[in-house]
Amino acid sequence: MILSERRVRSAAARVQGATGDEQLARLIWSVVVEPGDGVAGALVAAFGAEEALRLAEEGLADPAVVRAGLDGRSIAAARARWEPRLDGALATAAAVRAAKAGLVLRTPGDDDWPSQLDDLGPHAPLALWVRGEPDALGLLDADRTWSAAIVGARAATPYGEHVAAELAAELSAEGVAIVSGAAYGIDGAAHRAALGAGGLTVAVVAGGADLVYPAGHARLFAEIARAGAVVSETPPGTTPTKWRFLARNRLIAALGGATVVVEAGARSGTLNTAGHAASLGRPLGAVPGPITSTTSSGCHRLLREFDAQCITGAGDVLEMLGAGPRTVTRPADPSPEEVRVRDALASRGARALDEIVRRSGLAPRDAQAALGLLELAGTVRRAEGGWLLA
Amino acid sequence: MILSERRVRSAAARVQGATGDEQLARLIWSVVVEPGDGVAGALVAAFGAEEALRLAEEGLADPAVVRAGLDGRSIAAARARWEPRLDGALATAAAVRAAKAGLVLRTPGDDDWPSQLDDLGPHAPLALWVRGEPDALGLLDADRTWSAAIVGARAATPYGEHVAAELAAELSAEGVAIVSGAAYGIDGAAHRAALGAGGLTVAVVAGGADLVYPAGHARLFAEIARAGAVVSETPPGTTPTKWRFLARNRLIAALGGATVVVEAGARSGTLNTAGHAASLGRPLGAVPGPITSTTSSGCHRLLREFDAQCITGAGDVLEMLGAGPRTVTRPADPSPEEVRVRDALASRGARALDEIVRRSGLAPRDAQAALGLLELAGTVRRAEGGWLLA
Repeated sequence: MILSERRVRSAAARVQGATGDEQLARLIWSVVVEPGDGVAGALVAAFGAEEALRLAEEGLADPAVVRAGLDGRSIAAARARWEPRLDGALATAAAVRAAKAGLVLRTPGDDDWPSQLDDLGPHAPLALWVRGEPDALGLLDADRTWSAAIVGARAATPYGEHVAAELAAELSAEGVAIVSGAAYGIDGAAHRAALGAGGLTVAVVAGGADLVYPAGHARLFAEIARAGAVVSETPPGTTPTKWRFLARNRLIAALGGATVVVEAGARSGTLNTAGHAASLGRPLGAVPGPITSTTSSGCHRLLREFDAQCITGAGDVLEMLGAGPRTVTRPADPSPEEVRVRDALASRGARALDEIVRRSGLAPRDAQAALGLLELAGTVRRAEGGWLLA
Repeated sequence: MILSERRVRSAAARVQGATGDEQLARLIWSVVVEPGDGVAGALVAAFGAEEALRLAEEGLADPAVVRAGLDGRSIAAARARWEPRLDGALATAAAVRAAKAGLVLRTPGDDDWPSQLDDLGPHAPLALWVRGEPDALGLLDADRTWSAAIVGARAATPYGEHVAAELAAELSAEGVAIVSGAAYGIDGAAHRAALGAGGLTVAVVAGGADLVYPAGHARLFAEIARAGAVVSETPPGTTPTKWRFLARNRLIAALGGATVVVEAGARSGTLNTAGHAASLGRPLGAVPGPITSTTSSGCHRLLREFDAQCITGAGDVLEMLGAGPRTVTRPADPSPEEVRVRDALASRGARALDEIVRRSGLAPRDAQAALGLLELAGTVRRAEGGWLLA
C-alpha cells in the first residue's frame, strides 16, 4: 500500500491539508490519474479515496468494484492506465515539491472546498493544490460569493484586453469574484483588473501550481497568490499539456457562476471552456466585437450557434448571475400623433390648428389633444396665431 | 367627385401608370392619407379605391361602410383627418409634379408590384411613386429575386460603412437585391456597393420621390434611379418628416426578404425597421461591433432582446433568406487519446511506449492505438527507440 509507505507519509506530513488518511489518499490519486478521470471519480465516490486506492492497487479485482456499477471494460482500461503511476516514489516526489513550494492541499469536505465543483460529478477534481490563500478558494463557494469566469484568447487585441479589464474591474466592485486561467491576453487582463479593484480572483492552471506558465506571468502569479489563489488539480511539477489545458477548462467553467468569453478565434480552446459551462447549465456569455476581427469570430460563433448571451457590460453579467438586472428608466416614446404634430410645426412662424391638421393628416381633435400633451411636456408652445416648437 | 374633376384628370393623364380610374383613385388616396393609414387600407380593400374614394367624399355616411366591418369611432376619426385633404387641387398639384419629374405610378395589380408588400395588410401602401425603372420594382418581387434590406445609422463609423459595403457587394454578386433608405451612412454605403457590383438596388424614401433628401446624395439618387429605382408612397413634393421616416421603414422591412441592421445607436430609428421586420415574420439580423462603440449598441440590443441573428458575413444573410448555408468541411477534432499521446511526445528524442504510457496516463493499448492513428495521419513517426512528433 502506497498509503502506508513511510517515505510517502513523511513527505506528506509537511504538506498542509494532507494530514488525514483520506486526504493523503486523494493526494496519491491526484498523482495517479490525469484530470477528469471519470472511473477514478466513480470509484472514489463509491468507496472513499482510501478504499478506492486499495482496490486500485489490488488490480480492481474485488467483485465490489463491479457491484458499484463500474463496467468491466472501463475497469480493465483504468487498471492498465493507472498501473504505471501507482508508485510511492511519484507521490513522495509530489509531496516534497508541494511542501517546498508551500502549496496547500484541499479536498472535498474541507471548509475551503467550493461546493459548485460537485456539479462535475465523477469528473470533479479529486483534490486541488493551492498556492496562496486556501480561504480564497473557500470564498469562491457559490453560497458565499458571486463569481464569474472571464476567459479568452491569448493573442487578444487591445480591444479585448480593454473589455476584459473593464468587466473584471466593474464586477469586482460589485463583489463578484473573477475566475480565469492566468494565460496571456484576456485571462491576464481580467486577473489584473480584479487585483487592481481589490477584488477576489482565482487562477486555475493546467500544470503544477508551483510552476509559472507562461513564464512572463511570474509577477502576476505572485500577486494572485498573495490576494487570492492559484489552484491546480495536477500535482506540483506537472507540465501543462494540451490535454491538461482542455481538462482545466472544465474547472474554470464549474467555478464561475457564469462564463464570459471576451475574445476567441473560431477554433479557439476557449470555446471548450464555453462548452463546459453550457453542459454544466451555467449561463454563458460572449462579448461581440468587429466582424472584421478574427479574434472575435469565436464569440460570434457562440452567439450564433450556442445561444450565448450577448454581453455588452458588467450589468449583463450581473443579470446572468441572477444578481438582478439594473432597471433603466427611459422616457416614454412619443405617440404617433405627437410625432406627427411636431413634424407639422416649425420653430419660427406659428401655425394655426387648421394648417397643423392639413400638414399632419390628423383629425382636428387628435391634433389638439397631441398639442395639449406636447405643451405640458414643454416641447411646443402657443404663440400669436397658433403653435410653435418650443 | 375629385376623380371626375377635369384638372385632376388632365394632370394625371401625363403620369405614366395613372391611366385607369382605379389607378387615378389610388393616386388621389396617396395625397389624402398619411402613410400606413389602416382605415383607408381597409376601406380600399373592401370597396376598391374608386368606390372607397366616393364613400370618403360623401363623409363615410353610407351604411355599407359599417357593414364592411369598420367601427364607428375609426370612421369618425378618418373622416375628420381626411376631410382637409379631399381637395382636387392637391391631387392636381401632385400629378403635375410627378409628370414634370418623370415619376411613374405603380399600384397593386400592376406587373411591377412586389407581392410581398401585401404582407402589410391594411397598412400596405395604396400606391408607389417610382423614379427610375418600374421594372426594378417588379424584379424585387419575392417570387423573382432574393432581396435583403441593409439598414443602419446615418452617423455610421468607417467600420459600419465597410461592413455594409462588403455585405451589399457580396450579396449582389449572389444575385440578392439590396433595399435601403438612401440615408447617409449605412444606407448609402449599401446602395453604392450594390451599384458597384452591378446588382439591383432600390431606395425607399420618406418624402416625395422627386426630391433628394439628404441633398448630398443627389448623385447617388440619380445612379440608383438609373440602375434601379427610388420609390415612395408619399406624393411628389412631400417633405420627409419624422413620422414619414418611421412609416417608410415598414416598406423597407416588407420589401426585404430579410433585414440586416449594420450599425445603430441604442435608440435609433433603425430599430423601428427591425421591429417591422420582426412583426412581419421576416428574419432579422444584426451585425455585432465593439461594445465600446455606441453606434453598435442598437445592434447588440437586437441580439440580446429581440433574438436577432448574429450576422458576420454575406453567408449568414443567405442562410437567413433560406438561400442555403454554405457547408464548411472541417478536419475532425483529434480524439482525447490522440491529444494525450501527442502531449507525451517530443520532436527530438524518441520515447518508448512505456514512457509514453506513463506521461500520458493512458493504458498501453489505448496509447498504441492512438500512435497508430497519428502515424497514419502523419503527425507522429517511429524512430530508433520509440516515437517522435513528425
